[in-house]
This record gives sequence, C-alpha cells and structure tokens, in this order.
Amino acid sequence: MNLALADVGRIIDKAATIVVTTHVHPDGDAIGSMLGLYHGLSERHKVRLILDDSVPPMLGFLPGAENIERVDAAGRLAADLLVIVDAGDIDRIGAVATNVSAPRLNIDHHKSNNGFADYNYVDTTVSSTGEIVYRLLRLMGKRFTIDLAVNLYTAIATDCGFFRYANTTPDTMICCAHLMEIGVRPDLISEALETRPVGVLRALAKTLSTLEIEDGGRIAVITAGPDVLQEADNDTEGFINFPRAVEGVELAIMFTVFASAVRVSFRSKSVDVSRLAAAFGGGGHIRAAGCTIEGNLETVKPRVLAAARNMVGGKEL
Amino acid sequence: MNLALADVGRIIDKAATIVVTTHVHPDGDAIGSMLGLYHGLSERHKVRLILDDSVPPMLGFLPGAENIERVDAAGRLAADLLVIVDAGDIDRIGAVATNVSAPRLNIDHHKSNNGFADYNYVDTTVSSTGEIVYRLLRLMGKRFTIDLAVNLYTAIATDCGFFRYANTTPDTMICCAHLMEIGVRPDLISEALETRPVGVLRALAKTLSTLEIEDGGRIAVITAGPDVLQEADNDTEGFINFPRAVEGVELAIMFTVFASAVRVSFRSKSVDVSRLAAAFGGGGHIRAAGCTIEGNLETVKPRVLAAARNMVGGKEL
Repeated sequence: MNLALADVGRIIDKAATIVVTTHVHPDGDAIGSMLGLYHGLSERHKVRLILDDSVPPMLGFLPGAENIERVDAAGRLAADLLVIVDAGDIDRIGAVATNVSAPRLNIDHHKSNNGFADYNYVDTTVSSTGEIVYRLLRLMGKRFTIDLAVNLYTAIATDCGFFRYANTTPDTMICCAHLMEIGVRPDLISEALETRPVGVLRALAKTLSTLEIEDGGRIAVITAGPDVLQEADNDTEGFINFPRAVEGVELAIMFTVFASAVRVSFRSKSVDVSRLAAAFGGGGHIRAAGCTIEGNLETVKPRVLAAARNMVGGKEL
Repeated sequence: MNLALADVGRIIDKAATIVVTTHVHPDGDAIGSMLGLYHGLSERHKVRLILDDSVPPMLGFLPGAENIERVDAAGRLAADLLVIVDAGDIDRIGAVATNVSAPRLNIDHHKSNNGFADYNYVDTTVSSTGEIVYRLLRLMGKRFTIDLAVNLYTAIATDCGFFRYANTTPDTMICCAHLMEIGVRPDLISEALETRPVGVLRALAKTLSTLEIEDGGRIAVITAGPDVLQEADNDTEGFINFPRAVEGVELAIMFTVFASAVRVSFRSKSVDVSRLAAAFGGGGHIRAAGCTIEGNLETVKPRVLAAARNMVGGKEL
C-alpha cells in the first residue's frame, strides 16, 4: 500500500531516532536525498546516515557528506525508523538491512519498486527521489537552508540529466527555481559534478578512438579494454552517450572487456534494447540496457553484433 | 536609451511589415529568438526572416527554420520595422544592415551591447534573448503555440547550457516550466541539439588524445591539427570543455592549427583569461577567451604556454 505524503510526515514526526540509508553504488539522487533528509530533519530528530558503500568522490562536495557512516564501522544499531531513499528493493541497501533494527519507511521513484518496506511512498511520475524529499520537507514546514537546497538540487539535477531527460517535468523546473532562490548556484554544482581525474579523460580518448560504424551507419560501437578500465579507475560512465549522439545512429553499443567476461551496454533512439539485453541474460529499459556475457571480445562481439543488426533491421532476435 | 518592454510591444504593434534578423554565425538563442518572434507575430503582422548566413544544420529541426531567407537571395527590401535579436553591434548582422531599409529595434542581452539601434531593449540580467522574447510575447498577449514554445525553449536552453551556466536564474526555470506545460519535450530537443556527424566524434577522439598536462596539473592543453579540423568540418565547439573538467586544472588551452595562424582558446576556473588573450591581441570574458596568433604551432605554443604559466603562477604577464 502506498502512503500519502502527509502520512510520511506523520510517521517521521513520531520517530525520535532515525537512520537514513540508500542503495549501494549510490548516485547523486541517492546521496543528495539522504543528505537532504539529514539537513531537513536534524533540528528535531537524532539522525544517523548509514551506507553500505563509500560516497563517490564526485559527490564529496555535498554539505554533510562527511556525516555518512559506513555500515561496517557503525555496527549493529536500533532506531525508531529506518528511512530508505531511492531504492526499489531491500537487496539494494546491502548490510544495512541486517545491521539496523527499525521499522522501515521507503521513499522512492523507481518503476521497479516492489513495496518491500513497512511504509512505502513510491511516486514513479516524479523526476527523482530528491523531488519527493523536497515536497515532503515543504509539507512538513521545514526550514530550507542553503545546505539542504544544495543537496536536493544536486539530487534532482543529476537524476534528470540537468533537465534534459524525459523525466523532467514543469514541477521539476519550478522546484529547482525555488532551490535557486535559496541560493543554489547551478554553475558551481555542475562544475563540481563534471570534474573528473585526468585518467578518465585519457580513457575517454582511447575508447572513442575505437569507434566502429556498422550496418550502414545505424549502429555505432566502442570498446574499452582492460588498460582503459585501469586508466579510468573503472569510471567509464557516460562514454556510451558519445556514439549514441552520432547522426544516423539508432543503436550504440559499448563493450567493456574484463578478465573472463564482456560487459555490453546498449543505448538506443528507436529499438527496444531491453529485449536485446534480455536475449543475453541482461535487462534494463527500452532505450538503455545491458548484459554481461562470459567469454572474450572475439567470441562475444560477433554474437552481439549479429543480434543487434537483426533488431535494427526489424527482424526477430 | 533603453525602452520599457511595454514600449517594445507598442512599437511592434504599429508595424504592418516586419523583418527579423540576427547575427552571423547564429547560435540557438539567435535562431530560436528569430523564429519565436516569427511564430508570435505572424498572426497579426507580415513577418520576413532575413539572415546573412545559413541556419546551422543542428538547428534545422526548429519549426519554421525553412522560412529563414538568405540576405543575398532576398535582395533589397523595405519594411516598417527591422527587429534585430541577440546582436550587440550593427556589424554583427552583415549585409542585412545595408539591404533592409527600416527603423531598427534591437532586442538583446549581451553586456557588450552598444545601443546601436533606433529603439533598444537590452537586459543583461536575463539568461538569453529568448527569455526576453518570451516575456515580450506574454506581455503582448500572444498565443503560445507548440512551435513558438519549442523555439523559445531552444533559445533559452542553449544559451544557459541546459540550465547549468551562471546566467541561469529562477525566472529562467519558471519560464521553461511554462514552455514545457505547452508541450515542449526537453529530451527530444536535447537529443536533436546533441546529434553530430560521425566526423566530429572522430575529431574529438583525436583531439583529446593530444592531451598534455602542464604546470603540475594546473594547465591542460589539447591541439586540433588541420586533419582534425577537416574531419570535424570545423565544428570543434565544446572540445575545450573536456580538459577544463579535469581535476586540478585551473586553465585549459586549445590550439587550433590553421594554414598560417593558430587559434588559441582559453577556459579557466580561477584566472582571468581575458587578460591572457588580450596579451596576444584577442579578447573575451574572465573565464572564456581567445586569440588568433600568426605563425605555426612550433612558434606559437611556447609563447602562449610561458604566459599561461606566469598567469597561473600569479605573476604579471
């Protein structure tokens, strides 16, 4: 059962001690929403932030990030409420599920959410969990400090690709207008988010130089080998958007080569790549999906390309 | 003298025949603002769109772009009003200045605007000319169709880097929220704008592979040779943002090598690069500037790097 937002506020109001967590491999929406709740609730509640992962260096600038504790260091603890943000399944929060003993409240926007918590607030029509936290804290009459605003803005902006993705709504824009009125500087936040180690740029150059155009220009392929992965410290996020943006390309594929398997990422403008990924045991969305296939590049690549050509050509897989 | 926006509306109202133009090398704000006026005014006015350039292919998707005439094909003409959008100087509109005989109304947001027209409306506090046109057409009570909205949204979004640059204001966000309510799809517009010929991606890979890190990591340098320029069809826009986003880099420099000169672009996070560019006869803004220096890379590069090291080191040039 899905709660009303006012009920979420009442459940939080009753809890003196609150633990907030989010999913492993946290992104901007996960960390920003956690810290947004921290800044919004700390005045009246004792709030701890527990995570079964580290905070990505890129998000280290977020006010309050230094208060996020690793679950293994925090040990076993009890609280009046465990708030789980931006996670659609209990498996996503790792050891926090076993180490924290408390009734569970889930705040999320993912379509795949399975309603796992004791209390669930899931709205799949909003851009981000950050936008839900914004509405919640407004409804609760909380004071919007600049630290709170920076976190919620970052949560929202990262999850909607700085207002470019299809999940951006008029409400998303109006909410961020308000956060900017509080003092959020989009130029400083985007600069902080876009800063990358030099190795990532070198890895990007190498990966893009592998560009192959297939199927009369409809398929673009890039490949990141083990050397590139090492140089990028495994951070190749966003590389696949470059071949996807090539004129005429309907399907972009990135092969990432590991020791005994190849990770295959798909991005599409037309075809349903979740079916393509599923054909190799993977999954995802219509326009973005992926799979991991045992073997080396020489065996994996021809199989994937053959299936991709069939799909772009409108044939059955 | 700067007009009030209501006066701009009254001046337009009185004109039966209107020519709209903008600057050569037009960007999204220039073309989007032209076409925004076209869609907003055509119901009550006879509007012609005249430009001393072609419409960049990237902007060809804008509704009404096919109605933009080249000044040389249009020949000499007279009108009740020539509206010049997004240009701060009469030199910027090329032959339109001589070929179109009409009183001139200028609508612009550039700080460098010199008030050249008969009627000037210049607001340097807004994100874009598109945002001024939005306010004007709202004030005039015009009907906001989807074609109008797509053009103004594109004008605004391109000029503020999809809401990431320092010129983005809360009003910018609220204005675009309204345009989205009319039906603008940010995902489709950003996709159309980001699409590039495959040669540009190949050129990007080659240019990024030239990355050099100088001055203990504070200066990052990339170089685009004649082969790269040809491959990219001279479209290397945005390449310099990649070295600029490298961790620790305070100054990014891009050398673009032509037959007998080198174009030098500077982007900075801290130092005033307009002074650096000025030292070589160029100009620009504090964080983005450039110059063109006669000679070849072997002679130009050491001079520029020496000056750059001095500036980053806090020495006088």
